[in-house]
Amino acid sequence: MMSTHEPLAIGIDIGGTGTKFGIVDRIGNVLFSSEMSTKKHKTIDTFIDELHEHLSTLIEKAGGIGRMRGIGMGAPNGNFYSGTIEYAPNLPWKGIIPIAKLVSDKFKLDVTLTNDANAAAIGEMMYGAAKGMKDFIMITLGTGVGSGFVANGQLIYGHDGFAGEIGHTIVLPDGRIHEGTGKKGSLESYASATGVRLTALEVLENSSEPSLLRDLDKDTIDSKAVYDAAIKGDKLALEIFEFTGKILGISLANAVMISSPEAIVLFGGLTKAGDLILKPTREHMEENLIQVFQNKVKILISHLKESDAAILGASALVWEKEK
Amino acid sequence: MMSTHEPLAIGIDIGGTGTKFGIVDRIGNVLFSSEMSTKKHKTIDTFIDELHEHLSTLIEKAGGIGRMRGIGMGAPNGNFYSGTIEYAPNLPWKGIIPIAKLVSDKFKLDVTLTNDANAAAIGEMMYGAAKGMKDFIMITLGTGVGSGFVANGQLIYGHDGFAGEIGHTIVLPDGRIHEGTGKKGSLESYASATGVRLTALEVLENSSEPSLLRDLDKDTIDSKAVYDAAIKGDKLALEIFEFTGKILGISLANAVMISSPEAIVLFGGLTKAGDLILKPTREHMEENLIQVFQNKVKILISHLKESDAAILGASALVWEKEK
Repeated sequence: MMSTHEPLAIGIDIGGTGTKFGIVDRIGNVLFSSEMSTKKHKTIDTFIDELHEHLSTLIEKAGGIGRMRGIGMGAPNGNFYSGTIEYAPNLPWKGIIPIAKLVSDKFKLDVTLTNDANAAAIGEMMYGAAKGMKDFIMITLGTGVGSGFVANGQLIYGHDGFAGEIGHTIVLPDGRIHEGTGKKGSLESYASATGVRLTALEVLENSSEPSLLRDLDKDTIDSKAVYDAAIKGDKLALEIFEFTGKILGISLANAVMISSPEAIVLFGGLTKAGDLILKPTREHMEENLIQVFQNKVKILISHLKESDAAILGASALVWEKEK
Repeated sequence: MMSTHEPLAIGIDIGGTGTKFGIVDRIGNVLFSSEMSTKKHKTIDTFIDELHEHLSTLIEKAGGIGRMRGIGMGAPNGNFYSGTIEYAPNLPWKGIIPIAKLVSDKFKLDVTLTNDANAAAIGEMMYGAAKGMKDFIMITLGTGVGSGFVANGQLIYGHDGFAGEIGHTIVLPDGRIHEGTGKKGSLESYASATGVRLTALEVLENSSEPSLLRDLDKDTIDSKAVYDAAIKGDKLALEIFEFTGKILGISLANAVMISSPEAIVLFGGLTKAGDLILKPTREHMEENLIQVFQNKVKILISHLKESDAAILGASALVWEKEK
């Protein structure tokens, strides 16, 4: 039973399409939650007005503002130190947005901001697969590829609060160009949803091998379609996962040799392909590790409910700050 | 003037060829130092006996064992948690060597061990170019390539104490094979002394361009020879540094996007080439960084005296432990 005096935290996860928010207790129960469109708000002001309206209803249900200990927010390019979102390519608001201050002024509550993958890392450390770990890497494989590095029990924010961008590290120099950044050969240009789709189109183009994927309209080819073909034994579909796993495996090996984690926690759409993606990833990771790191690092799949994970992670920032 | 009560620390740096050791005060003066051969000792026992003999003389000169607060040691593949050296390819002793315990038993002093690049990082943080910084990366460019990552003011040792091995991260998948590890395309196989030499031989082989380097006996071509040719404007020599800087620059960009440091401190032989190597390194680093990281991270050259740096870094482990 919920005590009426128990402190609660608000978690807000801002994504390019939608924003999820909810009220969470200290042990990680999402008590109330909802979502709204991010995309339709051309200005940050109307976005915050709508967010405030929705959240006020939830806050009342949960016992009023007095029980709220603070607000944790995850957002692409969210900066922990400055509380600003800076040049986020997938959000409708350009430039530098002082979102933590704007939300704090509106709600009269403390606001802690970080990028979405860092928030996910704290959520996993507090409630998920990384519970109790002091050194691990969180990797989110979704529309983009994000990461959070935890060392000595602390999230690494770095000197200016933008650390953890493994998705933009270069795995194949002079490789595929990333549409958002213009950089060549980054992890995200291969291991994201878009990346897998592009690999599929390339593999189909460069081979004359028959494939179930050839029966599909090109526009509908995505990692789910590749998965469906691969479980039927489709050779090209398997090749697409093998290639994606090779790139991801090399990148994980590099991250392991730098930070020597206990585990890597994977989260997001691509993990639904299970061993089809995990097996080549693990193999290429081990193959590229030097001896002292081999056969030590666990690759774990997040077991947090996908609908709750983003809110949980964001809310965890509030408790993390109080530590 | 040296107070007779001031506590002192012993620093020992074990290298593949020689071992340096000395006695250091808290503000980083190396009061007494000397060195001995590592290579000639087939067993760890005779190595420690000789080390004890030499150091005992220095300890007496410095006021006796009572003033020694502890021993800090840097060694390849030195593990901070276990105090062991594990499978170090360049040392004469194979397998797992419990060196911290052996040295501690012999000297009756506390011993802290880590790998040589991590020790260098702590030395730079305490006395060198990274003084006062909380987030930086130390890179040692010598016979091998080592690194130490400092985040939130703490060295990252990782879950089992081997973190910081940027030299073994893969920069060019399926690239040049590393003789010691068997891995392909690692930073160390390009940005080490051996790596630069191999690049020089490859560039000479694959081009018919005239070069001052063609006048040399192949066995004598090293980064010094490439430097001498490059400052005379030799086109192939410049190309060798450009290529090396490209590989190093990509690797630094990746490290920056993961850890968002205030600065990168470079140390070791290759840095003597100055702008010939730094300019391409910086250019390729910036080129591969996404916008939020660009034009922010300083690349600094260590200004510690090369003869003292290893001893200083090792001794700093003693004070670091007391923090």
